[in-house]
Amino acid sequence: MRHSCAHLLAAAVLKLWPEAKPAIGPAIEDGFYYDFDFGNVKISDADFEKIEKTMHDLVKNWKSFERRELSKGEALELYKDNPYKRELIEEYANDGLTLYTAGLFSDLCRGGHTENPAKDLKHFKLLSVAGAYWRGNEKNKMLTRIYGTCFPTKNELEEYLTRREEAKTNDHRTLGRDLGLFVFTDLVGKGLPMLTAKGTAIRRELERFVVDEEIKRGYEHVMTPPLAKVDLYRTSGHYPYYKDTMYPPMNVDEEELILRPMTCPHHFQLYASRPHSYRELPIRYAECADLFRYEKSGELTGLMRVRMFCLADAHIICMKHQAVEEINRVLDLIEFINDTLGMKKGIDYRYRLSLGDRADTKKYFKDDASWDHAEKVLRQVLIDRDAPYYEAENEAAFYGPKIDIQVKNALGHEETAFTDQYDFVMPKRFHLTYTNEKGEEQEPIVIHRSSIGAFERTMAFLIEKYKGVFPVWLSPVQVKILPIADRHHAYVLQLHAGYIQAGIRSEVDLRSETLPAKIRDAQHEKIPYMIIIGDKEVESGTLSIRSRDGKTQNMKTDEFLTFIMDTIAKKT
Amino acid sequence: MRHSCAHLLAAAVLKLWPEAKPAIGPAIEDGFYYDFDFGNVKISDADFEKIEKTMHDLVKNWKSFERRELSKGEALELYKDNPYKRELIEEYANDGLTLYTAGLFSDLCRGGHTENPAKDLKHFKLLSVAGAYWRGNEKNKMLTRIYGTCFPTKNELEEYLTRREEAKTNDHRTLGRDLGLFVFTDLVGKGLPMLTAKGTAIRRELERFVVDEEIKRGYEHVMTPPLAKVDLYRTSGHYPYYKDTMYPPMNVDEEELILRPMTCPHHFQLYASRPHSYRELPIRYAECADLFRYEKSGELTGLMRVRMFCLADAHIICMKHQAVEEINRVLDLIEFINDTLGMKKGIDYRYRLSLGDRADTKKYFKDDASWDHAEKVLRQVLIDRDAPYYEAENEAAFYGPKIDIQVKNALGHEETAFTDQYDFVMPKRFHLTYTNEKGEEQEPIVIHRSSIGAFERTMAFLIEKYKGVFPVWLSPVQVKILPIADRHHAYVLQLHAGYIQAGIRSEVDLRSETLPAKIRDAQHEKIPYMIIIGDKEVESGTLSIRSRDGKTQNMKTDEFLTFIMDTIAKKT
Repeated sequence: MRHSCAHLLAAAVLKLWPEAKPAIGPAIEDGFYYDFDFGNVKISDADFEKIEKTMHDLVKNWKSFERRELSKGEALELYKDNPYKRELIEEYANDGLTLYTAGLFSDLCRGGHTENPAKDLKHFKLLSVAGAYWRGNEKNKMLTRIYGTCFPTKNELEEYLTRREEAKTNDHRTLGRDLGLFVFTDLVGKGLPMLTAKGTAIRRELERFVVDEEIKRGYEHVMTPPLAKVDLYRTSGHYPYYKDTMYPPMNVDEEELILRPMTCPHHFQLYASRPHSYRELPIRYAECADLFRYEKSGELTGLMRVRMFCLADAHIICMKHQAVEEINRVLDLIEFINDTLGMKKGIDYRYRLSLGDRADTKKYFKDDASWDHAEKVLRQVLIDRDAPYYEAENEAAFYGPKIDIQVKNALGHEETAFTDQYDFVMPKRFHLTYTNEKGEEQEPIVIHRSSIGAFERTMAFLIEKYKGVFPVWLSPVQVKILPIADRHHAYVLQLHAGYIQAGIRSEVDLRSETLPAKIRDAQHEKIPYMIIIGDKEVESGTLSIRSRDGKTQNMKTDEFLTFIMDTIAKKT
Repeated sequence: MRHSCAHLLAAAVLKLWPEAKPAIGPAIEDGFYYDFDFGNVKISDADFEKIEKTMHDLVKNWKSFERRELSKGEALELYKDNPYKRELIEEYANDGLTLYTAGLFSDLCRGGHTENPAKDLKHFKLLSVAGAYWRGNEKNKMLTRIYGTCFPTKNELEEYLTRREEAKTNDHRTLGRDLGLFVFTDLVGKGLPMLTAKGTAIRRELERFVVDEEIKRGYEHVMTPPLAKVDLYRTSGHYPYYKDTMYPPMNVDEEELILRPMTCPHHFQLYASRPHSYRELPIRYAECADLFRYEKSGELTGLMRVRMFCLADAHIICMKHQAVEEINRVLDLIEFINDTLGMKKGIDYRYRLSLGDRADTKKYFKDDASWDHAEKVLRQVLIDRDAPYYEAENEAAFYGPKIDIQVKNALGHEETAFTDQYDFVMPKRFHLTYTNEKGEEQEPIVIHRSSIGAFERTMAFLIEKYKGVFPVWLSPVQVKILPIADRHHAYVLQLHAGYIQAGIRSEVDLRSETLPAKIRDAQHEKIPYMIIIGDKEVESGTLSIRSRDGKTQNMKTDEFLTFIMDTIAKKT
C-alpha cells in the first residue's frame, strides 16, 4: 500500500511540476519516500497541501495497477530525459523490466501494489522533505526526497501522527535546545556538539559516577592520548577494517599520526610496557576515551550520532578460564548502571548476542575453534543469567563475538548502547603474554566492554527517557531560589552561596518579575526544587519549597540541605 | 672561560679524530657545547675519559689565544673541507672574520677568551652527548653535540656536578618511571604520554579539585570538541600566528578540520550562540581542554613538553570596568591553588608581566591606546597586590598583554605554568556583544586564563617538587596493607575492601615475602601509610600503622578511617 502511495505521490508531483524527474520511490518502515530532481525549483512543506490535494484528486480514477513487460529499448526511449531511470534500466535490464500503470501514470517498478488504489489509498499524509544524494553517494547530485505515510484507516493514520508528534517533542535534539544543554555551530563543524554548563553538569555526574564505580569494582582507570601513529592500527589489524571510518592521517615530523577510533591498542601498549605474572590477572584497564569516527553528514543525529564521542571504555586482560566470571561481572556492572539511570531490563533495554560467520574470512578472523568456544561462552552466560536476549548473525567484531546492550530511543528504535566482547585475536597481534605458575609464557584473552557507553549517546537516551525531568542528581540546576521582593535579595544570595559551597547546583532569579512568572519559568526549566523566599521565610528561617510536580512544603533551612544532599548522594 | 674550553674540546677531538668536522662551539648557561660532524664514527660518553685526558695534555701548551684577521678567501681555503664553517664564512664575511689560535689549534671565532688557558682551564668535565641538527633545522644533517662545563675551582666544579646529579634523580622523567606514573612507547608516538592508573589518580585529583573549586567561584564548566573547522581559526586570526605549531588539517566530507591549539574560539562560539545582557556579565567559561601543539621532537621533555596536553582553561567575558576585579579574582584563585599544591609565592613561583611592542605590528595587533590601557591595568593589579613580579618586553599574546605565572623546575629553570591575559581583539573578531542598560550593543573584553595550567606540566612540577613523596590526597596509593602471615589474608582483604568502598586508594601485599621486605618496597613506593596486620591486630581490632617517615603508631580501625578520610578531604 505504501509503495503504491509513492506512485501516487510521483503522479501528483509530475502533474504539478511536469519538468521534475522522478528517481526512486520505495516503501520504508512506517511509510514511503520518493526522490525527485526538481531542477531549480525549491520544494518545501508549504507545498504539501497542494500535492496532497492533487493526490486525492488523481487516485479517484486509479482502479488498478496494470503490469506490462518492457524491452530495454522501449524503457530507454520512455525515459530518454531521465538519467536516473536510465541508469537503473542499464543496471536491471538483464533481470527483465516491468512498467506499472494506474490512471494516467506509469512507472518502472518491480511490482507489489494494492489491488484497488482508489479504495485503499485514502488515509495518507506527506511528512517531510529533505535532500538526498542520488544512490546515497555524496559525489552524485543532491535530489529532493519527499517522505510520506499511508494507513488503512483514518484512526491508524491519526494515531501514528500523534505518536510522531510526541516523539518529535521528546527528541533529544528538541529537548536539548529547549533546555539549553548543547549547541552546534557552522564554524565548529558538523557532528561536533558543544556542551553548555548545563549539559556539562549531566556529563560530569555520569563520568564521575562511572569512574568511581569502576574503581570500586577493581578497574585501573588510565588516561591515554586520543591519537597515535598509524602503525599502531596496522599492528592491531584495525586499519584495513576501520580505515574508511577513520579521520585522515596527519604527518608530524617523520611520524604519521591518526585520531583513534577505538582505545584497545593504547591499553595493549600499556600492558605490554612491563612483564606480567598470572597473579596480577585479570588486569582491567578502563578509560573515558575520546574517540573519532567519520560518520556521513546525513547520518549525524544530535548527540546520538556524532563525529567524536567519549566512550567509557575498558579492556580486561585475563586468563581463558577467568572469562566467564569477568563477562558476568561486566553485565553486573552494566545492570547496576542501567538501574541507577532508571533503565529497566527487558523494557528499556535487552541483550543481543552478536555472532560471526565462519565462511566470511574477509570480515572475521579465521579461527573456527575459537569462534565456537567464545560464542558458546557468551551464550551460556546469558542463559545462566536468564537475561532477555536474542541472537543476531553477522554482527560480531572482527576479533570475536559480543553481547550488545540494545536501548530504545524516543521513536522506539533500538540502538547499541553498551557492549561486552570476547577477543581471542588481539593478544596474538600485540604479543600480549603472562607468565603462568610454571614460569611459562601464556597468551591471555581480552574482554572489550563499555559500561555506560558513549556519554553523548547515553545523554541522548536519558534526555528522551526523562523528557528533561531528570532525577535530582542529574539535573543541571537542582535548586532555584525565587525572592518575592527586592528586599529578600541579600538573604537569597546568602542561601545560594551556601548551596554552591555544598556542591549543589543552585540558581537565583533576581529579575523583577512576579512570583508566578518566576515559578512558571523555573517549571519550564524542569528544576526539581524551587525555593520561595518572602518576609515569613526570612523571619522564621524556614523555606517554602515547591517541587516541579507542583507539591509544596515548608522545611527548616538545615533540614532541606540535609535532605537534598542525601537525595543527590543516593543518585535519585 | 667556558667558550675557551669549547676550543679546547675541539682541539682534542680533532687530535683524536682528524676527520671530524667542527661546526660551532658556544658557551651556554652552566657550560658549553661543540657540534661536530663525525662522519660514520659514533661517539658516546665512553669516549669522554679519552677526550678529557687529551684536553688536559693539550692545554698545558696553551699560553694564550692569538687573534688574527682573515680575508674571506683565506678563510674558505682554510676550511675547504668543512661545509659548516664555509656556510658561516659566507654569512659573516661582510662583518669581518677572525681566527683565534691557542697551542696548535685555530678556530674561526669572534673572540671573548680567557687570558691564560693553561692556568684557567683545569676544572672541566664533559657531561653528555646528543644529536643536534645543523643550525637547529631538522632538514639539515644531524651533528654530534658534546656538552661540557668548566669552573674556576675544583670545589665549584664538584658542587655543580653534585647538584646536577641530584637534579637528574629529581627529574620527573626519572621519578615518573621509577614510580610507574606514565609510559611512552614508539607505536603511540613521541610526546604522547600514557598515564598509568597511578599517574591517572594524581591527574584525576587535580582535575576534580580545580573543576569543583572553579564552579564554586562562579565559573561555568563546559565541554567543547578538541577540533573544529580551520575557518574557526581563520576567523579568530589565530591561524597565521599559530599555523606552524598546529597539526595539519584533515579533510572530512567538505569540511577542513584541524586539532585545536587553544580553546578560546570554541568558547566564543558558545557565547555568540545566544544574545546576552549586561546583567549576565561576567560570564566565565571554563574547561579542561585537550589541546594539540606541534613541538619539535628535540624539545619534547617528559610531561613538561608534550605534543598534546589538557589545559585548565577559561575565558571570562566581561565589561571593561569589570576587568580589574576579574583579573584579581583569577590571581586569587591561582594563589589558592598554588597554596593547596604547596607552591610558595616568591619562592616556587613569581609573576611576569609580559608586554607587547607597539612597533611590531606583525606580531601584535595594532591598537596603541588599548595596549597602553591593558598594560596599565595589569601592572596596577600587580602593584596593588604587592605581588613578586618582573616585566618582560615582547612576551605578550598577539591580542594583548598578560601576567604569566613562572614556576621553577628541578633544575631551577623557570617555565610559564599559568597565565592571566587581557584581550581586546577577539571580541571584535567574533563580533561578541552584550546589551547595556540603555539597550545598546556594546563590546565586552575577554580575560584568557589558566588556573592550574596544563595538567601534564603541573604534574611534572609536582613530581619534581615532592620527589614522589606526594601529600596524601595526591598519593597514587594512599594505604598499603601488609599481612605478616598467610592466615591474615582474609582479614586484610576485608579491610582493603572497606577502604576501596570509602574511595581510599588502597593496596594489599599478599606476596610471601618477609615483613621487612614488604615495608622496604612500600617505602620505595613512597606510600603514606603502611598498615601491618598480625595476630595482635586481628584480635584487638587495632591497626599498627607505619608512616613513610618511619614513625609508627597504633590506632583503632575506625579511628584511622576517620583520620585518613579527613586528611584527604583537607587536601593534605
